[in-house]
Amino acid sequence: MSTSASTTLVLGGARSGKSTYAESLLSRGNALYIATGQAFDDEMAERIRLHRDRRGPRWDTVEEPLALPEALDRVLDPARPVLVDCLTLWLSNLMHAGRDVDAETARLCEVLAAAAGPVVLVSNEVGLGLVPETRLGREFRDHQGRVNQRVAQTCHRVVFVAAGLPLFLKGAP
Amino acid sequence: MSTSASTTLVLGGARSGKSTYAESLLSRGNALYIATGQAFDDEMAERIRLHRDRRGPRWDTVEEPLALPEALDRVLDPARPVLVDCLTLWLSNLMHAGRDVDAETARLCEVLAAAAGPVVLVSNEVGLGLVPETRLGREFRDHQGRVNQRVAQTCHRVVFVAAGLPLFLKGAP
Amino acid sequence: MSTSASTTLVLGGARSGKSTYAESLLSRGNALYIATGQAFDDEMAERIRLHRDRRGPRWDTVEEPLALPEALDRVLDPARPVLVDCLTLWLSNLMHAGRDVDAETARLCEVLAAAAGPVVLVSNEVGLGLVPETRLGREFRDHQGRVNQRVAQTCHRVVFVAAGLPLFLKGAP
Repeated sequence: MSTSASTTLVLGGARSGKSTYAESLLSRGNALYIATGQAFDDEMAERIRLHRDRRGPRWDTVEEPLALPEALDRVLDPARPVLVDCLTLWLSNLMHAGRDVDAETARLCEVLAAAAGPVVLVSNEVGLGLVPETRLGREFRDHQGRVNQRVAQTCHRVVFVAAGLPLFLKGAP
Repeated sequence: MSTSASTTLVLGGARSGKSTYAESLLSRGNALYIATGQAFDDEMAERIRLHRDRRGPRWDTVEEPLALPEALDRVLDPARPVLVDCLTLWLSNLMHAGRDVDAETARLCEVLAAAAGPVVLVSNEVGLGLVPETRLGREFRDHQGRVNQRVAQTCHRVVFVAAGLPLFLKGAP
Repeated sequence: MSTSASTTLVLGGARSGKSTYAESLLSRGNALYIATGQAFDDEMAERIRLHRDRRGPRWDTVEEPLALPEALDRVLDPARPVLVDCLTLWLSNLMHAGRDVDAETARLCEVLAAAAGPVVLVSNEVGLGLVPETRLGREFRDHQGRVNQRVAQTCHRVVFVAAGLPLFLKGAP
């Protein structure tokens, strides 16, 4: 990361290598990891464990399924990069808890706009398949699209990752 | 739009910001909007209403769910840019009405190739998820892919939009 | 293809034009086609027939649903380009047969890394929709993502195709 206050959104599909790419942006120094995933079942617990194993012991981790803007605001520090993985699980938790997604997204963007240190956020692109069968599926897809658009507007850089390789949508490599 | 006869295809996922991006290409002058959506239910009516509210009163709107090539041919005018939103709903209407999608696409491309004024068309990319469960879903996905390929071949510019940000697949920005 | 030993991965959605684009990379000379598809039903048989018709008689075809690394190793020849279409059907066949996907992918990458002639491989990106409903769907999506990442890492060039148009993720055009 060349500038101390840069904010980067890393977008990609499932198993696109987006988390590994995001981690590679912060490979220097003592970064902090904010994990939004919650283990509702064994499959999810296994996915979280795999992510944790890959990161290794270098990362301090804060688990925050819902109050992401507040957690991010609390830990922001010019000397310490932060990785948020991921906005998709955060959105899923917000919807499950009946929160106002638009208001929470606005709050997150306020915190990002004021960030003094580097922040990298990971999010899924989920709108490139057929229309989901269920209304909940369509609502999730729509919210995810809006969250991505708003965070992308706020961030200095936006990168789309496919097969582990980056395409820059905004900002220089 | 730098040239009067340019045709542009704007591709993207659901809630990718593709319509807003397409509208931004035509923000000068007295553009005409061809809407292909039909309100079969309340959810669809709400989506159409949201699109209309965002556009505001600046746009004259023609609603044409099926006879898009004919409608486009009728309104083409070097002095008036046209926005078609979107080819995905048009395709859905064609299939629902039992029309010959390949023939209609060929007719649309003929009209586009002869266009004297700027035309921007919006379409969804729907083939980047798993194989759809139903035969109808697979047929829709296949038709959409073919429509996008053919229109992309005809247009001067093709832009892929993700999180509101453009990637140029064909033509200069 | 500028160099004799180049390996290229062509990624894209369903009906994105990725096979046609991949074939265009090998349009000179006497190329060999390795087809991984198996006709389990009429719809699949029809899809295979359409692909075969488009290629025409110029291509010698080897059908190999499972032992792709071995087949590729056997046919590699500096004087003869090879097209593998596609890794997604190969993955599907591997999972159906209960094979170890990671081990097979590692073997494929070894063969690719040692290739003396040009090889183009086609694969689907399937992770850009909502989370699949079934565990099998999620496993397939995860395997596909990992296969794409590993093959992308091995190949000299990686191209993403949408609406028939290429975006270079790795390597020069």
